[in-house]
Amino acid sequence: MNIEIVKKNKTFDGETIFYRHQSTFTKTPMNFSAFLPASKKIDSAIIWLSGLTCTEENFIVKAGAQNYLKNTNTMIICPDTSPRELSLPEEHDSYDFGSGAGFYLNATTEGYSDHYQMYDYISIELISILKDYFKVDKVSITGHSMGGHGALVLGLREKDLFASVSAFSPIVNPTNCEWGKKAFKGYLGTVNEEAKRYDATELLKQGHIRGDSILIDQGLDDEFYPDQLLTQKLESTAKEVGQDLKVNYREGYDHSYFFISTFIESHIRFHIEHLNK
Amino acid sequence: MNIEIVKKNKTFDGETIFYRHQSTFTKTPMNFSAFLPASKKIDSAIIWLSGLTCTEENFIVKAGAQNYLKNTNTMIICPDTSPRELSLPEEHDSYDFGSGAGFYLNATTEGYSDHYQMYDYISIELISILKDYFKVDKVSITGHSMGGHGALVLGLREKDLFASVSAFSPIVNPTNCEWGKKAFKGYLGTVNEEAKRYDATELLKQGHIRGDSILIDQGLDDEFYPDQLLTQKLESTAKEVGQDLKVNYREGYDHSYFFISTFIESHIRFHIEHLNK
Repeated sequence: MNIEIVKKNKTFDGETIFYRHQSTFTKTPMNFSAFLPASKKIDSAIIWLSGLTCTEENFIVKAGAQNYLKNTNTMIICPDTSPRELSLPEEHDSYDFGSGAGFYLNATTEGYSDHYQMYDYISIELISILKDYFKVDKVSITGHSMGGHGALVLGLREKDLFASVSAFSPIVNPTNCEWGKKAFKGYLGTVNEEAKRYDATELLKQGHIRGDSILIDQGLDDEFYPDQLLTQKLESTAKEVGQDLKVNYREGYDHSYFFISTFIESHIRFHIEHLNK
Repeated sequence: MNIEIVKKNKTFDGETIFYRHQSTFTKTPMNFSAFLPASKKIDSAIIWLSGLTCTEENFIVKAGAQNYLKNTNTMIICPDTSPRELSLPEEHDSYDFGSGAGFYLNATTEGYSDHYQMYDYISIELISILKDYFKVDKVSITGHSMGGHGALVLGLREKDLFASVSAFSPIVNPTNCEWGKKAFKGYLGTVNEEAKRYDATELLKQGHIRGDSILIDQGLDDEFYPDQLLTQKLESTAKEVGQDLKVNYREGYDHSYFFISTFIESHIRFHIEHLNK
């Protein structure tokens, strides 16, 4: 495994590290960041999936998560949100498609199908990096917005891979909102049955139910909540199909990292509880 | 007082707010950020002065300070590091002079003397904003690198304005390092007696001694420590002149915000203890 350390910064007695490696699935170099607490027996990991426009840097710089992991045996790993260093058609034209907007799916459209394989990149390659390079046993997954969508979809479809699933402000029903429709048209050609396999609400309807409870935090002053995130669609479907789900609606909070930094401690505690079971 | 709120983000039950106002001293619009905890009786403030290249945004986004202020009556306020929206000679040519590099002094060179009045901006205008707009009684000051220099200089020269003084990785003897010499030449024409009034080590020699203890944290893997920061110059001078000073040398830590985020809690506790005396 050819994983290069780009830089290291000592943080809360552990290390914040930026990595780069050649991905089998995206056929590009991929970047990720991680925080490794000082513990000599790190045995579990939380995957953080970021939202639109983000890189591997945003969360690890802004969320303050290191403080809550410092005395644990759990690391956090934050992949980039798309392949980089490519020039595919329309790839760099908008913030919500192409670079910075991989939507954690396997693309099938021409050009994109060669590289935008983020679902496999996370569920196969990043998982094997965690197991083989970081020697981690158990993994949980969370994320924000587009990354919350990724965490829910991966957590529902790959139940056995993840000890627990949570999300901040996730896009819960992307076949039903503009962000999702645009992405699915660009990456899959149309909003088809395949698209529904990347839609948490649709996955619940298809019977992808987890035995454990999913945790979501959603700000009520989030500008994207009414039209793009559609949290209540997931909540009502979860009730119908019997998926245990706890949504904390947070008055006055918006879509920003200030919101994430406020509630990341509770998500980290939630995951560590499951990882240590 | 014409202070405009640019944006607000609810954070840890309080508010992270970005402000803009027309400054009397810089004769430009100036930006600052602040975190106001949820308390209804905020009565004290910490001023954070940022380092080279920073704006009012870096600290409030990256340091995680809100978490440690959330249950207190103390706000934090973070001014920009220089005037903006000007085109003075060489102002935008390098990272360590001009925009983003105001050095918290009153410039006397042509062009700069009209706007780069950061010492007065902080010690007069920002203080009166704190007292009149935010209705705060007591103020402490801290900062990083160039901002650590600013905090030490302001804290030594304006003893009665500040309840306590601390710094992260400060430039403690700028008349003796390249960053400082370049700034003093550009802003004051030469490294003269006036420059020594913006040099913490020189101020100690001149008899500017505080009755309370100054707190400094310095990473030992900080690339700027040996040639630019010169922490030990301040430490030995403080011993000679009887200034109480505690320097925590931190093994493995560098000059980054990861370092600041690790130790900001201890600085906040230090200031709050003095502010509540």
